[in-house]
Amino acid sequence: MFERVLVANRGEIAIRVINACHELGVEAVAVYSDADETAKHVRHADLAVHVGGSMASKSYLDMDALVDAAHESGAEAVHPGYGFLAENATFARRVVDEGLTWVGPSADVMEQLGEKTKSRKVMQSAGVPIVPGTTDPVTEASEVESFAEEHGYPIAIKADGGGGGRGLKVVDSDDSIPEALQAAKREGEAYFDNPDMYVEKFLENPRHIEVQVIADAHGQVRHLYERDCSLQRRQQKVLEETPSPSLTPELREELCESARHGMAEAGYTNAGTVEFLYEESAASETQRGDGEAVEGDFYFLEVNTRIQVEHPLSEITTGIDLVAWQLRVAAGEELDFSQESVEPRGAAMEFRINAEDAANDFAPRPGELTTYRPPRGIGVRVDDGVDEGDGISPFYDSLVGKFIVHAENREAVIRRSKRALREAAVEGIPTTIPFHRTMLDDERFRNNEHTTKFIDESFDLSTVPAWEE
Amino acid sequence: MFERVLVANRGEIAIRVINACHELGVEAVAVYSDADETAKHVRHADLAVHVGGSMASKSYLDMDALVDAAHESGAEAVHPGYGFLAENATFARRVVDEGLTWVGPSADVMEQLGEKTKSRKVMQSAGVPIVPGTTDPVTEASEVESFAEEHGYPIAIKADGGGGGRGLKVVDSDDSIPEALQAAKREGEAYFDNPDMYVEKFLENPRHIEVQVIADAHGQVRHLYERDCSLQRRQQKVLEETPSPSLTPELREELCESARHGMAEAGYTNAGTVEFLYEESAASETQRGDGEAVEGDFYFLEVNTRIQVEHPLSEITTGIDLVAWQLRVAAGEELDFSQESVEPRGAAMEFRINAEDAANDFAPRPGELTTYRPPRGIGVRVDDGVDEGDGISPFYDSLVGKFIVHAENREAVIRRSKRALREAAVEGIPTTIPFHRTMLDDERFRNNEHTTKFIDESFDLSTVPAWEE
Repeated sequence: MFERVLVANRGEIAIRVINACHELGVEAVAVYSDADETAKHVRHADLAVHVGGSMASKSYLDMDALVDAAHESGAEAVHPGYGFLAENATFARRVVDEGLTWVGPSADVMEQLGEKTKSRKVMQSAGVPIVPGTTDPVTEASEVESFAEEHGYPIAIKADGGGGGRGLKVVDSDDSIPEALQAAKREGEAYFDNPDMYVEKFLENPRHIEVQVIADAHGQVRHLYERDCSLQRRQQKVLEETPSPSLTPELREELCESARHGMAEAGYTNAGTVEFLYEESAASETQRGDGEAVEGDFYFLEVNTRIQVEHPLSEITTGIDLVAWQLRVAAGEELDFSQESVEPRGAAMEFRINAEDAANDFAPRPGELTTYRPPRGIGVRVDDGVDEGDGISPFYDSLVGKFIVHAENREAVIRRSKRALREAAVEGIPTTIPFHRTMLDDERFRNNEHTTKFIDESFDLSTVPAWEE
Repeated sequence: MFERVLVANRGEIAIRVINACHELGVEAVAVYSDADETAKHVRHADLAVHVGGSMASKSYLDMDALVDAAHESGAEAVHPGYGFLAENATFARRVVDEGLTWVGPSADVMEQLGEKTKSRKVMQSAGVPIVPGTTDPVTEASEVESFAEEHGYPIAIKADGGGGGRGLKVVDSDDSIPEALQAAKREGEAYFDNPDMYVEKFLENPRHIEVQVIADAHGQVRHLYERDCSLQRRQQKVLEETPSPSLTPELREELCESARHGMAEAGYTNAGTVEFLYEESAASETQRGDGEAVEGDFYFLEVNTRIQVEHPLSEITTGIDLVAWQLRVAAGEELDFSQESVEPRGAAMEFRINAEDAANDFAPRPGELTTYRPPRGIGVRVDDGVDEGDGISPFYDSLVGKFIVHAENREAVIRRSKRALREAAVEGIPTTIPFHRTMLDDERFRNNEHTTKFIDESFDLSTVPAWEE
């Protein structure tokens, strides 16, 4: 095992990685920007290196500064967390070229899987179902039109390097194609420095289901079952759960084995997630509403070549410590558990606690946490990046922390979560706690009738209690 | 299910029960003494009833006041927690006579199992191994002498109603019997209003291993495996763990099934614990020290007819919510899980965080928690009775809360616990956190070489960092 690891991130994921280091007897080196000089992840680490200005581009995205920090502190490996440079193959390669270990898949695999058209090809050739779409980049409106002619509208035009809704345009007629193509290209260039576009059949009411994978450098690939992240706002996940209440046991096995096989074929190592869209078969529409799982189709969406925000759901149900395994696998250890031994127990939900005023269109509201008392007790795990008195900085994302709730089944998780969210006390800034409490009482969510469009199209934000200063 | 339950207790166990009520959609009524007017369990409940003065005898032990509180608040059931009246059959019977439901076993069963000579008879007739001893009360020194002649010294003279080391005298020669018998009788009368004595072979270096049982009113009895509570100070548990690192799988099954069978024979309902002493066979002495489990003998010690402080260990490893099941079973529900489905996962330790100055002979030190930030993150559960700014009252026990740590095996639990205890911040009063941190580094504890005598006889308290104001 390493003696010292640089954690090239901030906030809750930096603390999660630092904890994993400490539990493995490894020293953790934090990095920090001007704005984060007194941040919790700095207090939590064994040592901390200043890497630049408050703007992420001047610090957490500054490859030179991060590599220097690793050398300066004597770190042997770099854990990137999620966000920032976590999926940047250039940085991964740079880290390795500098004689350090990258806690993640190889830069080659990251490149293979990081771009959508490439990853679709990899997964398709491994037999993973993909949404009908182009496997080569498209440039002309006529190519989009002929795709639409074959598969029908609506169709999605997507930037190859895109994500999080950026560089994505949905069209439902030939007329709107030229404008949408141009707009998506512009966003692809602006955000991802990549004007390549591809086209897919657009699923109107999909669910988002993803499979957690962990692989070692000795050819062993395991899946840790699925997470359902269908509850999204503008394509940002807000509440995740496991198991997916939409899958039958047979479909769950098929989905998870498909992801595992695809990642094995790709030569994947370390932790990663295979994301899918899932749509129920039209024939099963009438069976909805009673909470019964029905058969449907899943389609490969993308691979996240890093640990994810919602990874604790898999940890709490399987008992497997993913972040510790990221470090162990990076250090050359073999996974010591068989696929058959991975048995999820019960159900869990993760609530993202963001410094946002949900009733006011989720407006970010940085500021100081004058009171911060997360929930405790049975079945509650809290991963956070703050203590009482800390601030939520306007320079970075608004995630305060995550409350993960585990119980014997979905109904019990909902009841326990209501208890936990009622118990939590967070003052000084608005958070998404009132939103989550409202959602837990929503019959459509409780009955598992939601899709990724639910919050944007069918949920009345004015039912969330307004924040009072 | 009940609509409203009276929680006849205070502190962390009151909050544990209130949470269980809330998760079942039940309203929880707190009771409080003068000293507890602003206590967390009062803030946490749906309503609260004042039951008397700060002395426990004037409030939490006042049966009339508690029954009045139940009637006044419209509660249908009474959960006694642990301590106070939890094992008082008179109170249990009174509750039922008042038309309320007692969340615990029947008063008859409590009487059968609450007194040591009776419970020994019950268990012995069910085939549970017991320490060689008298099954009828002894009154004369000559009876003790003839027992010693048969079984050899040392032997223990114990008050029938006793517990916690009170009314217990160990003798190793005929000469010391008369004085010890008189002293034990005096303590039995003073503390338990019961001068009856019995005699047992005294195990010199036992471990304390107990089995959690839950039973419904329909004849179903399940065990939730064992907890090892060998780390004690003056017969008070300070750190518990599961599984017991001393048992082989075969002996574990034998022990747990023995407890289950004994409780079934006793007609037990609700949650209860069968405590055993365990001593390794003399032949295996030479195998000690390498952490290998070796064969030994277990002997029935006593039954605790209530939920225990260390119950979260069984919950966190089995995924079964014991306190919720206490309420469900009391309401007439059937246990919905088979014995075969109870599969403990991983290992866990519970650290009792007491307001005590361990380095100063565990002197109780009530006062205000000026800082209280319990640990968070993966594998950590916190059950407590306080928030920052609350006081620890001199009127009651010194338990601030419990940190329960879960991981894949004992070694990983120790590493995670060190991280969690390092992370915890408790200021204003001394606590047992420095003691636990020292213990986790002690090779004898790490190698499982400790018995119930370890802290009292072999552990140097001066190695625990002193508290600094």
